[in-house]
Amino acid sequence: MTREELIAQIVAKRSFLCVGLDTDVRKLPPHIMDEENPMLSFNRAIIDATEPSAVAFKPNVAFYESMGSYGMKVLEETIDYIKDKYPHMLVIADGKRGDIGNTGALYARAYFEHFHADGITVAPYMGEDSVKPFLAYSDKWVVLLALTSNDGSKDFQMQKNDHGEYFFESVIRTSQEWGDKEHLMYVVGATHPEWLERIRAIAPDHFLLVPGIGAQGGDFDAIVSAGMTTECGLLVNASRSIIYASNGERFAEAAHNEAEAVRLKMERALISKGII
Amino acid sequence: MTREELIAQIVAKRSFLCVGLDTDVRKLPPHIMDEENPMLSFNRAIIDATEPSAVAFKPNVAFYESMGSYGMKVLEETIDYIKDKYPHMLVIADGKRGDIGNTGALYARAYFEHFHADGITVAPYMGEDSVKPFLAYSDKWVVLLALTSNDGSKDFQMQKNDHGEYFFESVIRTSQEWGDKEHLMYVVGATHPEWLERIRAIAPDHFLLVPGIGAQGGDFDAIVSAGMTTECGLLVNASRSIIYASNGERFAEAAHNEAEAVRLKMERALISKGII
Repeated sequence: MTREELIAQIVAKRSFLCVGLDTDVRKLPPHIMDEENPMLSFNRAIIDATEPSAVAFKPNVAFYESMGSYGMKVLEETIDYIKDKYPHMLVIADGKRGDIGNTGALYARAYFEHFHADGITVAPYMGEDSVKPFLAYSDKWVVLLALTSNDGSKDFQMQKNDHGEYFFESVIRTSQEWGDKEHLMYVVGATHPEWLERIRAIAPDHFLLVPGIGAQGGDFDAIVSAGMTTECGLLVNASRSIIYASNGERFAEAAHNEAEAVRLKMERALISKGII
Repeated sequence: MTREELIAQIVAKRSFLCVGLDTDVRKLPPHIMDEENPMLSFNRAIIDATEPSAVAFKPNVAFYESMGSYGMKVLEETIDYIKDKYPHMLVIADGKRGDIGNTGALYARAYFEHFHADGITVAPYMGEDSVKPFLAYSDKWVVLLALTSNDGSKDFQMQKNDHGEYFFESVIRTSQEWGDKEHLMYVVGATHPEWLERIRAIAPDHFLLVPGIGAQGGDFDAIVSAGMTTECGLLVNASRSIIYASNGERFAEAAHNEAEAVRLKMERALISKGII
């Protein structure tokens, strides 16, 4: 999916919501455990219920991988379900992968060719040749970790280098030599809205994937205020607050209502910034 | 597997070789493609042929993941084959995983409980809470990326911070507050032997997993000279140079011979350091 198509979707849906498919088999509504494939049934219901309010889905690979090859099959079937039924939705595999060149190319092959994702989250620690294999796909997205939403972001990402630059700033600045805003986004946790101005100074036009509103407690208004561009430039992710809105029989309706409530806030933000 | 058991294996086998199972279905010997499950048949033959010369196996997860759920099933079957037949062998899943706390815990569950690996390679970018879930398993190993063997290691790992410390040094120093030498190893590429003295100054006793001899061209003698401790303290990995030593019908014998040639060099090093 191109950047132009993504922006068109945001305008059409009046939303920049990414729904995180962090599907934990231990948290599913009890009644769905009677189905033949509870994880897949749950995902299909959540996808159908939240698609009208969202522009992207982000399956978190760890939740599938924790169940081994069975879970990875559910991941295949989940992404195929989205791409078959809702081909206009951006699918980001949240795997935080990254390895040296020849191995990195295999992760790119896995997620872009085998799993049919449109994008993947990538960890930058190993540098240029660990990121480039993903950027070699002209119609795909690299979503590079910059400043993550967890406490541990202080340990290394917020260290200053000997040029007085934070390490996450170095990642954002350096990686722009490897790919452009058509194919590269950055992960910036919603728990760090005060840093968004610094980030926008280095990456004024890149899309930012912002996890951490909802269960992790980030501040939506502050994110919009400091991070939104004239083309939106934001994908804001919510996972648990939407997909586990209820664990009753009407869980999908509850997820729909929660996603739609977030979308309405997004619509107001898009209007107030003159984007729609 | 405990550190004590690992050292005992090194002494008994007179080897600190880790065989990397980077099994690429496109590189298998042609005759094996007639088997029902060529990847698994290849792995079993390589495991049987190289086990006498090695103390560890390191399946590189990307090679399996590139084939989706089918490949992940081969990974399950490969590790189960090793643990059933050769329970004294250390199995390190080379996945370079890492994510925020609750998600990191799922990767730990995946590799330690589901796939039955003894250790996993972990990327440090997200900090303490992305590493700790792996360290919560008392009988398992975290193999943390420090200074990797690729060109891209220059981009971030070799940046200096504002305390004059290289970033990879900061990773090694800081992570020792999270876990001890009984459960924590570091990845140090064989392409950087000149840095081993600096690393040994910070981590004098930790095991180092050293990939990059063989196909990547690292210098074995320099690694031993700067990195070996009185308890060995090294696992040196070779992948392609061993497992693809031949693509003829006698590929397993060729792999055995190549592994044994490396082991003989290792035996001489262990003798010269007085370890055996």
